[in-house]
Amino acid sequence: MSDQQIVLASRPNGMPDANTFQFEPLTLSELKDGDVAVRGTYFSVDPYMRGRMNDTKSYVPPFAVGQPISGGAIAEVTDSKADGFAPGDVVIGTLPWATRSVVPGKGLKKVDTTLAPASYYLGILGMPGLTAYFGLLDIGQPKAGETVVVSGAAGAVGLIVGQIAKLSGCRVVGIAGSDEKVAQLTKEFGYDAVVNYKTAPDLSKAIAEACPNGVDVYFDNVGGAVSDAVIKHINFHARIPLCGQISLYNTTDVPMGPRIQPMLLTRSVLMKGFIVSNYQDRFAEGTHQLAAWVNEGKLHYTETTLKGFDKLPDAMLGLFSGQNTGKMIVEV
Amino acid sequence: MSDQQIVLASRPNGMPDANTFQFEPLTLSELKDGDVAVRGTYFSVDPYMRGRMNDTKSYVPPFAVGQPISGGAIAEVTDSKADGFAPGDVVIGTLPWATRSVVPGKGLKKVDTTLAPASYYLGILGMPGLTAYFGLLDIGQPKAGETVVVSGAAGAVGLIVGQIAKLSGCRVVGIAGSDEKVAQLTKEFGYDAVVNYKTAPDLSKAIAEACPNGVDVYFDNVGGAVSDAVIKHINFHARIPLCGQISLYNTTDVPMGPRIQPMLLTRSVLMKGFIVSNYQDRFAEGTHQLAAWVNEGKLHYTETTLKGFDKLPDAMLGLFSGQNTGKMIVEV
Repeated sequence: MSDQQIVLASRPNGMPDANTFQFEPLTLSELKDGDVAVRGTYFSVDPYMRGRMNDTKSYVPPFAVGQPISGGAIAEVTDSKADGFAPGDVVIGTLPWATRSVVPGKGLKKVDTTLAPASYYLGILGMPGLTAYFGLLDIGQPKAGETVVVSGAAGAVGLIVGQIAKLSGCRVVGIAGSDEKVAQLTKEFGYDAVVNYKTAPDLSKAIAEACPNGVDVYFDNVGGAVSDAVIKHINFHARIPLCGQISLYNTTDVPMGPRIQPMLLTRSVLMKGFIVSNYQDRFAEGTHQLAAWVNEGKLHYTETTLKGFDKLPDAMLGLFSGQNTGKMIVEV
Repeated sequence: MSDQQIVLASRPNGMPDANTFQFEPLTLSELKDGDVAVRGTYFSVDPYMRGRMNDTKSYVPPFAVGQPISGGAIAEVTDSKADGFAPGDVVIGTLPWATRSVVPGKGLKKVDTTLAPASYYLGILGMPGLTAYFGLLDIGQPKAGETVVVSGAAGAVGLIVGQIAKLSGCRVVGIAGSDEKVAQLTKEFGYDAVVNYKTAPDLSKAIAEACPNGVDVYFDNVGGAVSDAVIKHINFHARIPLCGQISLYNTTDVPMGPRIQPMLLTRSVLMKGFIVSNYQDRFAEGTHQLAAWVNEGKLHYTETTLKGFDKLPDAMLGLFSGQNTGKMIVEV
């Protein structure tokens, strides 16, 4: 297959589709001093990338129309004019969606594939792992005996949040979108109870039954109606880390819902939005602890892998229909 | 006028009205050991009392139908079988809406009227002052140079919040409901700008103009559409102390509005509900600092006083139509 790249053909109005992504033949720029030539091996698709397809102010600038989409990726160095990189090195960085790239070496980091499979650095030892770690422990502050509810429980972040909450001595209740995920989360990932939000006849009642002592921490990955149902059962002095709102990312109108402030007010609840880069100063601590838990067998991990560069658009869309359990990865 | 009390005749559905309050002749219970007989002199009406008229779980139990409404009040001791209280003492406590009461002495505290007028202990040196102090400083954490927006800026709490924010070196922008309040807040209470939410043709635009650097702290007393307009201009890492939601207290349906979580998420905003009793351990600190600022002339104070026990229902309703500037008090 010849080398190619995927550009943002047009900004999606609602759910991205065939008009959003354009495959193009690739012309590589020349290798200058400080540059590294790489071949992409694992590409990460993440919900936040949907936000970059819009032309709105957020914590990362929007993708440019006609330019390659970019995201977290693992690559193999094929040529280098940058100190510290040599052909054969495995590196991680933000890379264009292209089979090959020439990028400045200073944006790349070498990863040690003797410690963990390369793709783990896009997941449990990377951005999703750190997001789970800091969001739950720093904002959620779970205490032993409390009840922690995680929406998007089978997602890249949710899968890790639930396990860290369990390590903190909490009752852990997940919300997920298929019976397969429900079974896997309870059997393999230690969740005490999991509610299938797509089939529960009365979601609020199902959450109440799964949380007989109410909800002390709600780690929110999805927003929308699922969150409305959880917040009804929120306890006094509860904490709500806002990590994602994936149910709303493809809405075209301003999403409306029941106002939550009266509940947060009367129950003295804390809600805090965050992005993982808020914790940049503490990444070493987080990565060290996550790696230790993985090595001790205390954190289990799984990922959903699609094979082939041409699967990147499908993988991205799959996030919104819940195709993945754990991190969604495209292996080239 | 003979002695009387005001009972909750029926739970209001929406705005309280003539059917909510019932005046009754008063029969005093006998003075037992530990009791104090008092004559009410100043009664406080506060927005949170509306919540107690509903039969819903909150941080204070609901009023009982057929029983007297109760709230913060200043009273004069007329007789005492409790240690530490003697006729003529001026006391503060939660008292029934009754011209005279017999209550346990342990629920009362003497106030020193040589330091400040008695009614101040229901306002700037009492619950509203402490609410402003802890909500702004502990949750809002204003830093010099930041912009602080206060809704319900002319209310009992808002009036104090704005001045403490000013003492913290912030640009202070109020939102209030009449041109008289706008003028008074800017001329007498140091607000840098005040928006009249009832007359601004485009509230969001008016807030943007008053906050050229965005909003770093939003002290929310009112909720609803006013808050929607403010949150549009919230800055990264902003803090939103949720103190009141008075615009919603008389709604009969679940109030709907634009979902705020996407904004809180993408801008890493903290929102936290609170009630003043969360800070009970620090009341001495708060009262001491507020009294010092009042004595140093750094905090100005005003109240709206209605005269006559029979004005209590009108005073309560007046809160919802914005009749008051500063604390609303009924003087008997």
